[in-house]
Amino acid sequence: MDALENILTRKSVREFTNRPIKEEDVKTILHAAMSGPSCVNARDWSFLVTKKNDILQKMAEANGKPAQPLKKAQLGILVLGDLERAFKPAPDYWIIDGSIAAQNMILAAHALGIGSVWLGTYPQMERVNNLQKLFNLPETVIPHSIIAFGYPDEDSYALAKGKGFYEEDRVHIDRW
Amino acid sequence: MDALENILTRKSVREFTNRPIKEEDVKTILHAAMSGPSCVNARDWSFLVTKKNDILQKMAEANGKPAQPLKKAQLGILVLGDLERAFKPAPDYWIIDGSIAAQNMILAAHALGIGSVWLGTYPQMERVNNLQKLFNLPETVIPHSIIAFGYPDEDSYALAKGKGFYEEDRVHIDRW
Repeated sequence: MDALENILTRKSVREFTNRPIKEEDVKTILHAAMSGPSCVNARDWSFLVTKKNDILQKMAEANGKPAQPLKKAQLGILVLGDLERAFKPAPDYWIIDGSIAAQNMILAAHALGIGSVWLGTYPQMERVNNLQKLFNLPETVIPHSIIAFGYPDEDSYALAKGKGFYEEDRVHIDRW
Repeated sequence: MDALENILTRKSVREFTNRPIKEEDVKTILHAAMSGPSCVNARDWSFLVTKKNDILQKMAEANGKPAQPLKKAQLGILVLGDLERAFKPAPDYWIIDGSIAAQNMILAAHALGIGSVWLGTYPQMERVNNLQKLFNLPETVIPHSIIAFGYPDEDSYALAKGKGFYEEDRVHIDRW
């Protein structure tokens, strides 16, 4: 797909078919995650990847009600911040770096015809703590977001196809 | 450009020619910014856009030493978080939403042949405060990041073209 069209037509997809996602596509999505910029090129992230239904169910439970789409997903990727790799003078750049990785995954999936939805984790600390326990993560490894992936259920995809809208009043030229 | 190639070949560009950026391309970049997901679709961002050299110089000074590429840029966009629009139970999602918008701009620019570099602002509060003063921003409007744009200086672009690398050890299958 054309790169601009891909960015402008992305929409969240919450209903998935049971068609599996190929391993090579999982790798492309992860490669995209690792191709964004990061603060001082710290690459301060890791990815916990699963296609297993029982694990997807547990991740969904840990991440609260809006994470229900994960239960029917074919792939879930938990983006993790890695504080040991983060920029020491301002480690909270890990939040930005994880976001970049996650958005790259969503765009790469869309280019492959795979739908996805971003499930917020950080800064909702109950979700963060639940996932840390579920996966027994080191203290320096912080759950950031979960992306649920799958081929779109046709009806919901038709609804989902559309263009992000441009809001003139959000643009300030030369001054506030 | 192909959407996947676009994501995988993006690199930071810090040297720009003096070729101006067309207005329609600025608008495409901003449309991309507004096409990402945001927490509960809050769209909790705004964009301060300038092509004016004197303003670019002041923004560069306000944002610290790594912001020097802005001084030769043809376009600077300051991404702003809007706390009044943010998700009330967890307003810090504004940090993630601004990051998504910024990464979409960088990818859209790359698709148009325009280079860019992400200049970190938040969470470095001295930079945040300097930019708030410079543009006399309301208290609820928080500087997030600046993206500097321009056509790549040919030599540096040749250097910059490359692929993000895949690190196997960042991927954890089914468990940490």
